[in-house]
Amino acid sequence: MDDKQQPLIEVYGHGGDVETAAAAFGRSAGDFLDYSANINPLGPPPGVVTALQEGMSAVIRYPDPGHRNFKERLAAELDTDTQCILVGNGAAECMALLLMGLQPGKVGVVDPCFSEYRELSSKFGSDICSVCGHPEQDWRADKADVLKLLARTDLLFLGQPNNPNGVQYSLEDIREFAACAEEEGTWLVLDEAFIDFIPLEDRQTLMPELQNYSRTIIVRSMTKFYAIPGLRLGYTVAHPNVIRKMAGKQVTWSVNGLALLAGEACLGSGREYEQHTLQLIGAEREQLIRGLRELGLDVTPGEANFLLIELPQPWTAETFQKEMGIRGVLVRSCAMYPGLGERHIRLAVKDADANGRLLVIISEVLGISLADAT
Amino acid sequence: MDDKQQPLIEVYGHGGDVETAAAAFGRSAGDFLDYSANINPLGPPPGVVTALQEGMSAVIRYPDPGHRNFKERLAAELDTDTQCILVGNGAAECMALLLMGLQPGKVGVVDPCFSEYRELSSKFGSDICSVCGHPEQDWRADKADVLKLLARTDLLFLGQPNNPNGVQYSLEDIREFAACAEEEGTWLVLDEAFIDFIPLEDRQTLMPELQNYSRTIIVRSMTKFYAIPGLRLGYTVAHPNVIRKMAGKQVTWSVNGLALLAGEACLGSGREYEQHTLQLIGAEREQLIRGLRELGLDVTPGEANFLLIELPQPWTAETFQKEMGIRGVLVRSCAMYPGLGERHIRLAVKDADANGRLLVIISEVLGISLADAT
Repeated sequence: MDDKQQPLIEVYGHGGDVETAAAAFGRSAGDFLDYSANINPLGPPPGVVTALQEGMSAVIRYPDPGHRNFKERLAAELDTDTQCILVGNGAAECMALLLMGLQPGKVGVVDPCFSEYRELSSKFGSDICSVCGHPEQDWRADKADVLKLLARTDLLFLGQPNNPNGVQYSLEDIREFAACAEEEGTWLVLDEAFIDFIPLEDRQTLMPELQNYSRTIIVRSMTKFYAIPGLRLGYTVAHPNVIRKMAGKQVTWSVNGLALLAGEACLGSGREYEQHTLQLIGAEREQLIRGLRELGLDVTPGEANFLLIELPQPWTAETFQKEMGIRGVLVRSCAMYPGLGERHIRLAVKDADANGRLLVIISEVLGISLADAT
Repeated sequence: MDDKQQPLIEVYGHGGDVETAAAAFGRSAGDFLDYSANINPLGPPPGVVTALQEGMSAVIRYPDPGHRNFKERLAAELDTDTQCILVGNGAAECMALLLMGLQPGKVGVVDPCFSEYRELSSKFGSDICSVCGHPEQDWRADKADVLKLLARTDLLFLGQPNNPNGVQYSLEDIREFAACAEEEGTWLVLDEAFIDFIPLEDRQTLMPELQNYSRTIIVRSMTKFYAIPGLRLGYTVAHPNVIRKMAGKQVTWSVNGLALLAGEACLGSGREYEQHTLQLIGAEREQLIRGLRELGLDVTPGEANFLLIELPQPWTAETFQKEMGIRGVLVRSCAMYPGLGERHIRLAVKDADANGRLLVIISEVLGISLADAT
């Protein structure tokens, strides 16, 4: 990050830090329209809120150290065995346990990507090798580059869909990566933290055929789709040998009791919430892409609930973030992502009302009236 | 554990596992009088329950990765600097981060002790050296043995008060240990997870003079005294260099948002709850010791909210635990603790009503009527 500017609100390396934003922009932490974190705008499923409010008994006793009820429910949902699942204190803990359990000397990443791949690798003593995605491929890397990276690393993190650009590799490509990982003895970690936001028929996931690939590992998050990031809940699906190695490094009770309770409630909340979310995000994302392009912004056509955007000159992520922050809207600067430039930002996709307000404020900041733009 | 019996309900190495107990004894998990975990019988302070029930906004956003509000409140409470505090996902995470951050080759423990000292050391690659406490000293070790252990290890865990016997070393002894640690370049980790249950005037703690000892580290838990074990919240107080090394291994957002919210509410809940707890535990512990001794049990006079007990022959922890479990009462077997024998169990101290029921059921199990015993 030597040649990168210092983050204004991403002082801990991430979006969603309303405490820092409050200090930076002189507003209270609850007073922002937060487009810097990618959380389901519907909030948690209704049954989850009730379960939590009635969940005091899960507070006053220790969490189940074996996460048994949630894990069994998850195994049924994913049509897999509980031995193939590790429940984690967020997807971040899952990634940390992978690094601690598998101890890869060299970790590969495809830039731009989720900053924790690098952060955690450095925390747990792995060296980083990277290749870069291409703007003309919506920031996907060349398949050949990924295959070469698999050959020269011990573990490769791949976002599917990738953060911050929001696009997937095709299932064909992913199969090729997994076969290569198998051959090379490299661990392929598919980070599917945002895949639930993609309609089932469009998801490019190896989950149903994971048992064919002993070297491929899938990490998922419950916190984004079900809007419970404050509780921390994620999971890993992999060969039982991998799960055992991860469990060997997990601290007892690292997953809290309300997260487990909420996780069970989320899985039991029925398909309606899921369908509603997919319809909302799908429709609003297209609407938002149109609106942003009409304002002259360069938008990568992501498939998830966030969008990578390049601002027009002379704006930078920093100057834009400041103007937006003053007006109560948080956007994620992507200027510190290796592979991206100082004009890149990321925006969440929210509901029509919020997105409408966002577009008005962006147009105000850019000095373009919406009427002029359309 | 080769020569030790397999645990019946401590399959994850700890008490409070009502899920395993439910399967073992054919009752529902919520249907036990749980004397195997040492939680404040008053439950959380009333303001905490309300804060949690109204805390949905902490669920739908990311936790503050810097734990700033809670840490500032804690620093004021402890009269120390925020740089000297690390907030953890329970005391267990604090201990794990100490081992990961300081990487001691050899870890010392004084048996009998909290099982996680060994578990975590083995998880993170440290060898264990141990000395044993003496029954005639309420299972305290000889001071000379502790000093020798400090000289030949890189980090020593010491429970103050110690789990499972519940007794403290004198402040004089602790100062001597801390001075020795300073001289030997050994890390002395004082595990004060249960010290809040001891009245202020009886607490033997280095906390107010910790700045004099760069090698001494204090770990505390919020979950036992404030009855929020399901949420996970603990902290470490130490020299800023130690805190930085620990933070360098902590996964972002490992402490969840409701734990931080509850932590703030606990610290703001006033002295009344604290006083009430101390009075209750103090009085009920003495009452319970008397009652247990009248039933012919050998009780170590612990100072915290739990008691180490040796059962009369021919009972073993296993046979007794089974009979109690069938009757809906969970007790902690201590048969697997190095240094203790197959007749050792640990009991929590609860309120008068629960303790009364406990004594009746114990007397029933032991086949002694309360009238005969008194």
